[in-house]
This record gives sequence, structure tokens and C-alpha cells, in this order.
Amino acid sequence: MVVKGILIIADGLGGRPTDIAGETCLEAAATPNLDRLAERGAIGLVDPIGPGIRPGSDTAHLSLLGYDPYEVYTGRGVFECLGVGLDVQEGDVCFRANFASVEEVDGKLRVTDRRAGRIETGQEELEAALSEIELTDIAGVKAYFRASTEHRGALLLRGEGLSPRISETDPHEAGVPISRSVPLDPGDPAAERTATAVNELTRKSYEVLKDLEVNRRRIAAGNLPANVVLLRGSSQLPHLEPLSSIYGVRGAVIAGGALYRGIALACGMEVIRVEGATGGLDTDLSGKAAAALSALERFDYVFVHVKGPDNAGHDGDAHAKRAFIERVDRELIGPLVGPVEEGRIHLAFTGDHTTPPEFGDHTDEPVPVLFAGRNVIPDQARRFGERAAGGGGLGRFSGRVLPILLGYCDWGPKFGS
Amino acid sequence: MVVKGILIIADGLGGRPTDIAGETCLEAAATPNLDRLAERGAIGLVDPIGPGIRPGSDTAHLSLLGYDPYEVYTGRGVFECLGVGLDVQEGDVCFRANFASVEEVDGKLRVTDRRAGRIETGQEELEAALSEIELTDIAGVKAYFRASTEHRGALLLRGEGLSPRISETDPHEAGVPISRSVPLDPGDPAAERTATAVNELTRKSYEVLKDLEVNRRRIAAGNLPANVVLLRGSSQLPHLEPLSSIYGVRGAVIAGGALYRGIALACGMEVIRVEGATGGLDTDLSGKAAAALSALERFDYVFVHVKGPDNAGHDGDAHAKRAFIERVDRELIGPLVGPVEEGRIHLAFTGDHTTPPEFGDHTDEPVPVLFAGRNVIPDQARRFGERAAGGGGLGRFSGRVLPILLGYCDWGPKFGS
Repeated sequence: MVVKGILIIADGLGGRPTDIAGETCLEAAATPNLDRLAERGAIGLVDPIGPGIRPGSDTAHLSLLGYDPYEVYTGRGVFECLGVGLDVQEGDVCFRANFASVEEVDGKLRVTDRRAGRIETGQEELEAALSEIELTDIAGVKAYFRASTEHRGALLLRGEGLSPRISETDPHEAGVPISRSVPLDPGDPAAERTATAVNELTRKSYEVLKDLEVNRRRIAAGNLPANVVLLRGSSQLPHLEPLSSIYGVRGAVIAGGALYRGIALACGMEVIRVEGATGGLDTDLSGKAAAALSALERFDYVFVHVKGPDNAGHDGDAHAKRAFIERVDRELIGPLVGPVEEGRIHLAFTGDHTTPPEFGDHTDEPVPVLFAGRNVIPDQARRFGERAAGGGGLGRFSGRVLPILLGYCDWGPKFGS
Repeated sequence: MVVKGILIIADGLGGRPTDIAGETCLEAAATPNLDRLAERGAIGLVDPIGPGIRPGSDTAHLSLLGYDPYEVYTGRGVFECLGVGLDVQEGDVCFRANFASVEEVDGKLRVTDRRAGRIETGQEELEAALSEIELTDIAGVKAYFRASTEHRGALLLRGEGLSPRISETDPHEAGVPISRSVPLDPGDPAAERTATAVNELTRKSYEVLKDLEVNRRRIAAGNLPANVVLLRGSSQLPHLEPLSSIYGVRGAVIAGGALYRGIALACGMEVIRVEGATGGLDTDLSGKAAAALSALERFDYVFVHVKGPDNAGHDGDAHAKRAFIERVDRELIGPLVGPVEEGRIHLAFTGDHTTPPEFGDHTDEPVPVLFAGRNVIPDQARRFGERAAGGGGLGRFSGRVLPILLGYCDWGPKFGS
């Protein structure tokens, strides 16, 4: 009998001791369903990329899906472009884009907010205006932009002889001018062309956005205008052997965040859209669980991404992180306990890195990981969390959580004979 | 005082929960000697190649012996040729060979059994007939064949300008014609020559074998004839730094299976033949134990391979696998407990991969590993098995069991100063 697989990655799941009784957010959370599966299955610690390596979300996901990010990673922008549905082709240069707020001071654009007050509506109007931009400084280069959630979007440059080897325009802080893009290797003509196009695009984004109706309304309401686009994560299509060709099975992704859909697409999965999957703390977790179970009728495995723990961690809010983890346990894990216990699915649950709220960014400590299902040998663990995982029967290993899950499903390709 | 080492690899040792009380075959087996050594020594989990990598026996052995199979592995055939005693030289193309049964249908050879009914006698006559074959399609190419156990053998092609980059003739199923060998890279002249020689050899093997006396007798007795040779595992000599030069000590191998002798030879060990070491479930385990202990008078370490657990696993027979493991504990481990406890030897015991009988092939889960002897710090483990190893003091690591054993024997080369 074929037992299919579900991989759940809770972004930024891992943590450090907080002031909630000295426990991590995961430990402090009431997680009866994860604890039950820890008792039925086996747990351990996974270093998303390797011990002492502090991961980005993109590199961590590549590693957990079975790739060596040091070999294949080209940058974040290409995954953002794929994730918002842009048709990325060989030679295109891709960027993660932010709507941001700037003010013009002495002819320079000074950033007042890198996220345009986390704008929540009106992105269609902004996207339409950006689509009108024609680049003329470099002949034959076209820009394609698409908005995703809140201030987020992705941008792609297409033309002959472009290069991703340029600096970004996002200065990563407010109160300073937008950075001018320059070639990373001086004198590189392809990078010169690309930086010129990026700088023209940046200036023109301000020109077409600043007087839009949506921004007049925002300013009238006392909000910051979304009047420029900041670019980072310059990259091109990575060369990834599709998971479907490595394992001979079909996978799907359910993720609110464009980055995660894009990574999964680059790895050969198909996208399942779930109404209410926002990539935020308000995401519809029950909807994701139901969609994952129903997708297994058509796919061999499903990768479900939830972003909430990372958002709360970046916001420095330990209580929100704990509360979201409790909701994950109840609404996303809860509906899967029965199918696991009845031997109908294999489940893997982990995070892509730690995001301790006290630090407010990713750190490099290993993350608890859980496998459960018919072919998993149970260990002695009775609950799920950092301390329990340190004594778990799976020990400590690096990356490759999806290949291990597919191995339990009997889909691993044999190396050697 | 020098304390020498014995490495025992029980092929396919690891498993999954079976219907024998939900335990693995190893856990369900009564293994008082392994349990006693687990109590005296230390245990853990080893990923033969790495987490989530499903190993072949050849690649797993290379990794456990301390090599990186991704770097050195060229294919299985060369180890089979070395293992049956063929003199493999640089440039030779080597194959694993099977005696198989075919019937001629419309001028094509259709496979009726890939193992010729697991033929048990008469191989000398078949071998002699194959030695008479002269290849004429490609000038200057000679074939050397040697039979090993049952339907198994190895074949080597020697000549100028040959290449292992060809497809195999073994179709891996019955009821279909023998596959025609073709170059893996179209237009590669060396591969063209080699494929032509392989196809000629295959046709001529049928011509010289089909009317042999041994096959007339087999047919008369209602058995399938061994009337063709199927080839796979095309490969050339790998470049392995000999273990003797890495560690400065001499090692020997005791193995019934040609593949394992061949791997050990390629790594620079010497072969000790043990009467009754068959590479099957009927192998003489006491004989292997006695031979290993006596070999330590001449060698610094001995690698003992037992194939039984893997055979039973491939046959889907959990009870046979458990019974064989019990025999390994009694007849092979039993005689070594005293020497370990008296501080006279260091022992390492593990498997090269898991072969769960329910699946009937290798899977990627880690395998329990045990080290015992004077220099091993004992952990808390009180018995040997998958679950116990998950809580063992050695944690989880990848490959390199022989280097670790030689380390306990104080023979590790220092890297750096």
C-alpha cells in the first residue's frame, strides 16, 4: 500500500528561552496534537543547512527539500518572481520588490518607510501604473512587475546581456537615500547595463506612483504613500533537477508567501491555491489542512508552509509566536492526527530556522523535527519541543527533511546497487 | 599494547516495525551477546551514506569504509570482477553477470528467469564454455568470465578504447527480450565499440550455453536452463587510496559474496577464504568468527561481511531475518565477547543499510552501530537495536565506521598538526 506524505514547515519555528517561564515559544505552547504525534513517531534536531550556519528562509528551504544551497542558490528574487506567477526565462534578472515610502530632498529620494506603512489595499492600481513604465536608457530591456501581499512584490528584467551581479537599491534602513545600483565587478558590461536599467526603473517608479489616486488617499488619511519600488535579491533561474525527476513522484505546495511557492515551483512542485492562506498570522490553517488532505488524491506528497511563527519572531512578540504555534497545533496538525494514526499518511513537521523574538531575526541553532506514520520507528519522546528533540531518537542531522519523508514513503532513488 | 579490530557488517541489518510485536527484526531477535556488548560499549545510529540517502550495498560499503562514494564510485561490476578473482587492469570494462534463462521467440531472446532458477550446480561447465567465446565484431577485444555463487558471476572486457558508458543487457524483469546495449552518449566511439562487443558476447553466450550437457540435464529434470549471460553494473577500476596507505596497517576481508570481497580488495585489504562462507542464510558463521580471530595473528584488522539479513529482507521474510540475526549473535558475536571483554580486540558491528522485509528492498533510514573494546567509553545502552541506538551515546553520524574503529585502535592518521 502506498502511504503518501505531508511536509509542514513552520517558518522560524525554533527559538531560545523566553521570559515565558524560561521556555521557548514552542515549549511554552500547548501542543497536544504535536505531543501525541511525538509519542507515536520520532523526533530529533535538524540543522536546516548545517551546524553553526545561520540560514535565510530561501537557502534553508532548498536544503530541507534536499538540495545543497551552496551549489544551487543564486539569490531570492527569482523565487519571488516565480511565486507571484511571472514567467521566468533563462537570462532574466529577478528581484524581490518592496513598495516603499520616499520623500524628495535636494533631488534625492530619501526612504521614510521601507514597507510603505505595510500597505494593505490598492496594490492593483500601483501594479498597473508600474506596468506602464518603458525603459529607454538601455535599448531592448523590459521590466515586468507583479504585486503579492501587502508591500511585497517581484520584478523581472528581460533583455539581451543582463547580469544579476549588481548591488541592490534597498538601503535596508529608513532615513537614508535609496541606494544606487552599481556592478559588483567594476567594468562588467552586462552588470553596467543591468544597473543602469535598475536605476532608471527606480526613478520612473517614483514618477508613475507618486501622484496616483491611491497615494493621494493614503496621504489624506495620514498614511505613508507607496511611492517607490525598492529592489533586492538580484538573481537568475537556478539549475535544480526537479524533485519529480529525482523521486519519480508528483508534489504540490500550499503557501501564502510568494517566496515559498516560488521555491517549490523551482523544485518542480505544482501550486495549490488556498483561499485565506495569507502568509500572515491571520492565515486559514484549517483550510490548509483540508486542502493538503484533499490534494493527496491527486499528488503523492504536499508541502505546506506557514509563515506565522517567523512573523511573530521578527516582530519580537513571544506571546504572539506562542499563540500562533498553538493555533498550528489545533487547526493544522489536529486534522492530520487521525490520518497518521490510521496509517494513511506520513507526516514531517519542522521549521526552516529559529527566529527568537528577543533577537528578532534568524539564528543558527537546530530546529525540532518530527516524523510520524506507519514506517517510522517510535522513539521515547512524549512531547514536541526543543529540549525533547535534543533527546529524540532521530538524533541530529542536517537538512534533507523532504528526502527522509519520501524515504518513509518508499520513494527514495537508490544510489549504487 | 596494540588492540586489534574486527568490523562486522551484517548486510541489510536495519529495519522497520514488523508484525512481530511491532518491533524490527533486530529488536525482536534474542541477541544476548550484542546486548551484553552494548552494555559494555557504546551504540548509536549511522546513516550509511547520509541522511535521506537510500544506499546500494556497494556505495554503502565504500562510505562505511571511509570513502566518499560520490567521488570514487564507478559502478558495481568492477567489484564483482575483483571479488571472483579476475585480474582487473586499468581500461578494462567490468560487469556483474547473471546466468539467466531465455527462450528464442521470433529470433529474439526472451528472458524467462533472470536467475536461471537460482542454479546451484554445473557452473564450472558453463564457465568453461563461456571461456571459449571469441569476439570478432570488434578487433582485439577479449572477454574473461568467472562464475561465483549460484547464478552469479562477473565478466570483464579487455581491449583498446573501451568505455563503461553503455546501457546494460539485463532487462530487470522476466517476460521481455534481453536489452540491447547502446552507448549512453550517442556517437561516443569507445562506447559504440564496447556496446557492440557486449551484444556479440550476449548472443554468443546463448550459442555456446544452450546445448551444453548441464542444460540438457536441467531441462530433462524440469528445471530452467542457464542458457545466457545478462550483464549490468558496467564500470572501471576506481581510484581508491588503499586503506593500508591511509592507516599504515594491514587488513583482511572474510566474505562469502564476491561483491564484498571485491570492494575490500579495491580498498587494499587481502582476502581470507573460509570454507562454508557462502554469502547465504546457510553460511558458516562460527567458521567466520574463528577465521577472524585467527587472522588477527597476521593482520591488524579484519572485516567480516554477512549477507543473510539482506537476503531474508529481499525475500520479504521477517521471521527468517530475525532467525538469522539470532544466529549471528550466537555463532559470530558469541565467540568475540570474551576477547572484547578481556581487552584483546575492538569490535564494530553495524549494517550497510536497512532492508525491511515488508518493503523487500533497501531503504534510507539509519542503522544501529555498536563499538566495544578497551578504548570505547560505555554509554547507558543496555541492549542493541534501532530504538536503543536512537538513544545511544554515539548519537547519529554518517559512514566512516571503519575509520572510527581504527581510531579506537590508535591508528588514525592525524590531519593537521
